[in-house]
Amino acid sequence: MIDKLKLINEMAVDNGSKIVLLVMDGLGGVPLEPGGPTELEVARTPNMDSLTSRSSLGMSEVVAPAFSPGSGPGHLALFGYDPLENLIGRGVLEAMGIGFPLQPQDIAIRANFCTVDAVGNIIDRRAGRIPTEECVKRVELLQQIKISGAEIFVEPVKEYRFVLVLRGDGLGSAVPDNDPQLIGVPALPIRGDDSKSEKTASILRQWWAEGNKILKDYPPANSCLLRGVSKDPGLPRFPEIYKMRSAAVATYPMYKGVSRLVGMQAIEHNAETPAEVFKVVEEHWKDYDFFFVHIKKTDSYGEDGNFNGKVGVIETVDLALPILLDLKPDVLVITGDHATPAKLKRHSWHQVPIMLAADTARFGKAVKFCEASCDSGTLGRIHHVDIVPLALAHAMRLVKYGA
Amino acid sequence: MIDKLKLINEMAVDNGSKIVLLVMDGLGGVPLEPGGPTELEVARTPNMDSLTSRSSLGMSEVVAPAFSPGSGPGHLALFGYDPLENLIGRGVLEAMGIGFPLQPQDIAIRANFCTVDAVGNIIDRRAGRIPTEECVKRVELLQQIKISGAEIFVEPVKEYRFVLVLRGDGLGSAVPDNDPQLIGVPALPIRGDDSKSEKTASILRQWWAEGNKILKDYPPANSCLLRGVSKDPGLPRFPEIYKMRSAAVATYPMYKGVSRLVGMQAIEHNAETPAEVFKVVEEHWKDYDFFFVHIKKTDSYGEDGNFNGKVGVIETVDLALPILLDLKPDVLVITGDHATPAKLKRHSWHQVPIMLAADTARFGKAVKFCEASCDSGTLGRIHHVDIVPLALAHAMRLVKYGA
Repeated sequence: MIDKLKLINEMAVDNGSKIVLLVMDGLGGVPLEPGGPTELEVARTPNMDSLTSRSSLGMSEVVAPAFSPGSGPGHLALFGYDPLENLIGRGVLEAMGIGFPLQPQDIAIRANFCTVDAVGNIIDRRAGRIPTEECVKRVELLQQIKISGAEIFVEPVKEYRFVLVLRGDGLGSAVPDNDPQLIGVPALPIRGDDSKSEKTASILRQWWAEGNKILKDYPPANSCLLRGVSKDPGLPRFPEIYKMRSAAVATYPMYKGVSRLVGMQAIEHNAETPAEVFKVVEEHWKDYDFFFVHIKKTDSYGEDGNFNGKVGVIETVDLALPILLDLKPDVLVITGDHATPAKLKRHSWHQVPIMLAADTARFGKAVKFCEASCDSGTLGRIHHVDIVPLALAHAMRLVKYGA
Repeated sequence: MIDKLKLINEMAVDNGSKIVLLVMDGLGGVPLEPGGPTELEVARTPNMDSLTSRSSLGMSEVVAPAFSPGSGPGHLALFGYDPLENLIGRGVLEAMGIGFPLQPQDIAIRANFCTVDAVGNIIDRRAGRIPTEECVKRVELLQQIKISGAEIFVEPVKEYRFVLVLRGDGLGSAVPDNDPQLIGVPALPIRGDDSKSEKTASILRQWWAEGNKILKDYPPANSCLLRGVSKDPGLPRFPEIYKMRSAAVATYPMYKGVSRLVGMQAIEHNAETPAEVFKVVEEHWKDYDFFFVHIKKTDSYGEDGNFNGKVGVIETVDLALPILLDLKPDVLVITGDHATPAKLKRHSWHQVPIMLAADTARFGKAVKFCEASCDSGTLGRIHHVDIVPLALAHAMRLVKYGA
């Protein structure tokens, strides 16, 4: 895949055209009942429907058949990186998500407060889901721990979750989780799978022992578990591969984080509604060639099982769409990072509808933008990793391959 | 891919059946306006339309999503060779195109006469497109140059284009073009990227210096530019892989060249119109099992942006089609090597319509042969590398895979 990105990079030219990738998180859905509509099918979306006449529609596989993508793989795929070859560790994602300024050699760890009994056996892996304020207080205590060999950062996330970052020389990340994923047993010993990772493991063992001494007086969060020990994978940079000044306009830290990880500029703003988010794109229109625009709430309602809530968000996006259309992007892609059917209350493996609007598209018939029309669209069945390259092609940003 | 070809080869049997692969160069198109037809959709093609009732239709990806194939990759894919793994240099393609008997160790270079000013800056990269007779005269002068270390062949092609071939021991082909692809600047220095290629570069530098001494008195072609330094990639031979006596019937040298490169017999003829070309197939019907038949002008009109001209060529092909149908090939495939939408005036990344007519096909409904019907055809979405294997399968030339 990196080789294919290399070819794309060699074919890419900067012709000044503008591309918008509008991602409604968890867009795809399934009907609640046989014969029924999906969320997108029931939503009133006159602007998107009208846009289909000058678009190419299709269905897109995010990772591989049967894979329900997490947010990391979903967005890596959207940006053109093979999510099977490039997995971002949970620690890095979590650190990126809170905006922690991770450096290339840093080791990031996702940590969970947990409850252990008198002999150290885990009795609650999430410490009763303590409120975030409690998390913050305990993290402040943990920030006092010093271990030689690395600078240590501890940052709260939400409820029982926090992030640990080690900064030092020669630290490896091949350190398995100490979370046994079971209750009634103690945490697993912390070990490194190679000499550099053993150095990391040694620091973590000392830190964890100190941490337990501090936490033991503060049940239910009287211990913690360490997971997803990882480093920035050092992915080739999006703006350089594709030769586009690239911006992310997202409201949630995680999506800003994954955009920064590939070298996009994550624009800081206070926008919340789709209309406000689109206005941010408008304000920065001249400064970038590529805009990744992320709408979160489609996924949130999907995960809550709130079918009508998800429909409502889609309609709000459609209502605001003229703000983007008035900017006259050369290519506008509308899709999701994965499906989150309200019926299933989770990310799913279903393919995701996609619409690519461009004057260079092979137009189909004017239809409603939804799964049914995308099934028979002129784009056919594609893969998420091909979405940005296809957007570049339609923006005439890729020259011929071979003589 | 070579491994897949090996499997195909193991399954292939010669049962005496006949296959015709009819390629309309640049066949695929896009509508000029939303709701409008493509070139193929607007063309009156009663013979092809009637053939759909005993055909399987589909859309085919030539190289990969977003890739606009050059003629080389497009035809390699058509012949079943993965164009991402096998790239043919421009020099080799050009040499093959004029029927030069290239040997495995030869270094082939595509050369262009150009015009330079008094200080050597390029002012016309095509020397005013001098007529072919002028090209021939200058090439005769250049043929006199002798450089130690290689036997040197210089052959005219057409207008400002000629071919240079170096034959000698230990010559590498990693020599970048000296054509800066710009005017107002001098040719780039000729250099080799490794020691064998530096040997080639050294011979080329001496040859180029001598050539310029000769040419300086013959403006507008008073210098030349060297491009696409390359060797025969030594692809496995088409007739042996597929176990078919294989012929190419093409009017343009490039397509004869790429056919020869994979070991097909390029039939010499003076045919020009589709009917004349098809008559050549008829004349040689008994001598071969497989015919690659190439129609160039669909692409030429596409590149000129002449929508109606391209429609006209498609209609001429359709009108002549009974000549091929009367031969009763077991399998007739009609497709393109890439799309060349008149709207875009260039090779494009769009998938290409394909029709495979055979008694063994899973027939669909009788429809018009065009992109819209191919979108929902029984072949589905396929890849160009699979076209010849599918033709063999439909000709009952492939036995079962595994017990």
